[in-house]
Amino acid sequence: MAQKPSIPKGTRDFNPQEVAKRNYIFNTIRGAFETFGFQPIETPSFENSETLMGKYGDEGDRLIFKILNSGEYYSKFQEDIIKIIFQILKHNQQYLIKVDKGEINFEDESGMSDIADDFRKITKSEINNFLNKNFSESRFSNDHFIDDEFIEVVTSEVGGSVEKLNLFITLDDNHLDRISQSVFSKYYQNIKTQYITPYISEKALRYDLTVPFARYVVQHQNEIEFPFKRYQIQPVWRADRPQKGRFREFYQCDADVVGSTSLWQEVEFIQLYDTVFSALKLEGVTIKINNRKILSGIAEVIGASDKLIDFTVALDKLDKIGEDKVKEEMLSKGISEAGISKLQPLFTLSGSFESQIESLKGILSTSKEGKKGIEELAFINEAISELGLTTATLQLDVTLARGLNYYTGAIFEVAAPKTVQMGSIGGGGRYDDLTSIFGMKDVLSGVGISFGLDRIYLVLEELGLFPETVNKNVDVLFINFGDKEALFCLKAIKQLRSEGINTELYPEADKMKKQMNHANKRNIPFVVLVGEEEIKSNSYTLKNMVSGEQFKIPLAELINHIK
Amino acid sequence: MAQKPSIPKGTRDFNPQEVAKRNYIFNTIRGAFETFGFQPIETPSFENSETLMGKYGDEGDRLIFKILNSGEYYSKFQEDIIKIIFQILKHNQQYLIKVDKGEINFEDESGMSDIADDFRKITKSEINNFLNKNFSESRFSNDHFIDDEFIEVVTSEVGGSVEKLNLFITLDDNHLDRISQSVFSKYYQNIKTQYITPYISEKALRYDLTVPFARYVVQHQNEIEFPFKRYQIQPVWRADRPQKGRFREFYQCDADVVGSTSLWQEVEFIQLYDTVFSALKLEGVTIKINNRKILSGIAEVIGASDKLIDFTVALDKLDKIGEDKVKEEMLSKGISEAGISKLQPLFTLSGSFESQIESLKGILSTSKEGKKGIEELAFINEAISELGLTTATLQLDVTLARGLNYYTGAIFEVAAPKTVQMGSIGGGGRYDDLTSIFGMKDVLSGVGISFGLDRIYLVLEELGLFPETVNKNVDVLFINFGDKEALFCLKAIKQLRSEGINTELYPEADKMKKQMNHANKRNIPFVVLVGEEEIKSNSYTLKNMVSGEQFKIPLAELINHIK
Repeated sequence: MAQKPSIPKGTRDFNPQEVAKRNYIFNTIRGAFETFGFQPIETPSFENSETLMGKYGDEGDRLIFKILNSGEYYSKFQEDIIKIIFQILKHNQQYLIKVDKGEINFEDESGMSDIADDFRKITKSEINNFLNKNFSESRFSNDHFIDDEFIEVVTSEVGGSVEKLNLFITLDDNHLDRISQSVFSKYYQNIKTQYITPYISEKALRYDLTVPFARYVVQHQNEIEFPFKRYQIQPVWRADRPQKGRFREFYQCDADVVGSTSLWQEVEFIQLYDTVFSALKLEGVTIKINNRKILSGIAEVIGASDKLIDFTVALDKLDKIGEDKVKEEMLSKGISEAGISKLQPLFTLSGSFESQIESLKGILSTSKEGKKGIEELAFINEAISELGLTTATLQLDVTLARGLNYYTGAIFEVAAPKTVQMGSIGGGGRYDDLTSIFGMKDVLSGVGISFGLDRIYLVLEELGLFPETVNKNVDVLFINFGDKEALFCLKAIKQLRSEGINTELYPEADKMKKQMNHANKRNIPFVVLVGEEEIKSNSYTLKNMVSGEQFKIPLAELINHIK
Repeated sequence: MAQKPSIPKGTRDFNPQEVAKRNYIFNTIRGAFETFGFQPIETPSFENSETLMGKYGDEGDRLIFKILNSGEYYSKFQEDIIKIIFQILKHNQQYLIKVDKGEINFEDESGMSDIADDFRKITKSEINNFLNKNFSESRFSNDHFIDDEFIEVVTSEVGGSVEKLNLFITLDDNHLDRISQSVFSKYYQNIKTQYITPYISEKALRYDLTVPFARYVVQHQNEIEFPFKRYQIQPVWRADRPQKGRFREFYQCDADVVGSTSLWQEVEFIQLYDTVFSALKLEGVTIKINNRKILSGIAEVIGASDKLIDFTVALDKLDKIGEDKVKEEMLSKGISEAGISKLQPLFTLSGSFESQIESLKGILSTSKEGKKGIEELAFINEAISELGLTTATLQLDVTLARGLNYYTGAIFEVAAPKTVQMGSIGGGGRYDDLTSIFGMKDVLSGVGISFGLDRIYLVLEELGLFPETVNKNVDVLFINFGDKEALFCLKAIKQLRSEGINTELYPEADKMKKQMNHANKRNIPFVVLVGEEEIKSNSYTLKNMVSGEQFKIPLAELINHIK
């Protein structure tokens, strides 16, 4: 069957030129990571679902690509569920079956209101007995009892109307809230069956590199010598709505250190950003820095510690909507007029890093946490002033609030030169505790940064900063005049290749014009022609495809000429 | 919630040493690919399911990792199905609902035997009306009518026994055969519900690099200048049962040429294998070659053209079970005694490539195709004899029969040196038509080879062939005696890094012994100590961690010493 080929939306093919350009960026980043003492690790493309789920918030969970279990797992599960449903329907009765961590709750009453809080608990073996008694073959084995999940089957005939007959299969951990809220109160109309997912999928594509790294650190803690500086350059996948510059498969380039709270790490990460962007000849990059403690301090000072997110979201809009609208938004979120007036110096914060620090000292004089944040920022700024940056600029930006859910200290974001319309091309920060979610006893502080490959690519492209030599193209094509000539050529080609010269023999003895066209279309700079005469004189006619010049020379000279 | 972290079976984490060793192999292969004129492409990790399914046989289809659709797609589908089921059950009647390409067949009778061939056809809008009439909200929108698939819901009460009540949801294109054979004849007992897959999954992880390459060539045919020499080094995923040396995620390293039938390609691929394994210092590799036309020719000569696979499977066992058992197996597969006797020279085939060719000429004198195969092999062998191989040996192996489903000419397989117990470490061959499955009009012949990264890794490890310099470890660690000293160090570190020296500052001013231990545990060869005295004299104490030697030297000397 002929198919019109295409690729899934949000994914990309890369042709040789694109691969070469991407590798140029990867290699630059990798080289800098290594001179800074970071070492590479790689983790699998897919992780167990429980490693990823619940780490990125509800929205993140939805955007994780889940992998369907292989084999007949789903099929068996489906059959079992269907059998139970039929058994229930056969008896024309109401049941609540809850399969939860080795326990099954089984309800057989007619009063709907009783279901939620009054059911008889039965054990796994009881349900197995039940299934064995009622069905010729029970496949309801232990396999189906996954930790922290359950199956729930409810049938009901609400208000005696057959029209309202409903069936629900929910398989989610947080069921009870949903059941009581959205289901029971709304005659079950809003129930969703997506919670079947854990039964048909146990693996998922990695969503970022940080969570797999945390998992790696905990799993291999006994092999790792801390502080551990690792880098990781691998693709990640997100089921985001694809749009310009946002893809469903894209690379992240991360460097992190875990096991040290030293602020020298922050200093070195700023140097690392500067090193990479300088090596890429991308001048005029701004490395913005903020500190979570500054934001918490401000929120504390204005009596809005419980509104940290509302407050920072509003503050973040200062550039776009101006001071008055920001204040308006803060008021509407319940931040007091008195609190906002304390912020006044913040709205006019500008000038050098040092003068901003001075203003912040005034604003945050009553907040212990805020003062700690100022201290950290001042330390980092002084070190960077002493050490100097090559092409980048360090800028304090108190409106910077990315990753507030996990960053606890420094927050970084890198802005492309102002001449280019582009969001951030890098970001990162410090997190106090990466590994406790995976059961690690020792609290490991970490700090890390990430480079946005795709955006850096677009910036370099727009500014024409890819070096001309980035394409490892073929250096020379040998024209094919027939088998005897081809064999003679291949002896020379073997030599050229061993000298690292990218060399090709045109495979067929096609018309010379066609072969020359092939060289032209592929921008191959040199062509070698070998006919009877050349074989006789053991020489090669080298043609420069740009200048048109042409020489008959021996092999050693040919190699020197092309090299 | 604390979790014990692990990774899915069949997948691997790679630590810095392993990454370095793998990259050594990748870089060697990549370098050779490029000197031979191959250019890199990359394709997405997942493809549309229809791109992959049906390309690897039934077994392959099962081993493809499918990705669950994101969003609520499945949920809606599930709800609709459930509603239909309930509607049917509500009436206590028998229905056959077949939703197929915009047509719905709806059956409402009691005679089971009538279902298959006698139902009234209704349209999509009729089913929508039906659903709208019967349910408050019909979600049975056009979304659910996917080409080439259908939903089928059957309920039946066979023999009047309620126990036999069954429900089937089948979603497979080839339903009718299954329905009539396994379902109707066996009272539906063998129906499987796995055919729901196309409804909940439309993407799948790539299974190899060849099919995505074919898709790439067809999709981008207008941008490609043929003959097209591409290489691709990317991971693939297979839901195989994991075992020693077989993983669910592993890399393939493929080089292919499409658009030329020239045998010089085969010659060059043999050179390419030789170049890579020589560069890896893996001597004693055997490149086995055969030709599909030889096998077809032999089968033709012995009157078993229809038994090519049986014949080659038996022949393949010659080494293991010996001549007599092979003959026995061929007989048992229906190959005639007369035919087998014609094979006699084959069983004693040995010696040089040339003498084997001579024997084959005798055996295949009556087969046109066989003679073509001999010609091709002889051409390749003569060229390689002229050109010479560096460390590998080319061997004709008429029992080599890999990839008979797709290879049409040359078949390659590379065996590791005999001192190592290992299967093939590479393979490939020529295929006549890669792209017609994707609707390409021009028939494009291709030939390609693949390197087995994981097995090559194991072989190099076993033979101790990884160079000592393979680990890009940290070159020097600066001991941290406090903030003042650290800042002084970082100025030097900046210089060292710009010289390409991998350098680290120990982040905390911990006890010196702890810092020295850290350097030792990580096998860092040099340590630099900077105290008050060094700062005063603007010098650095460099300690060689292996010899224990120690010098106080200025920065320029420090750099020279470590470099």
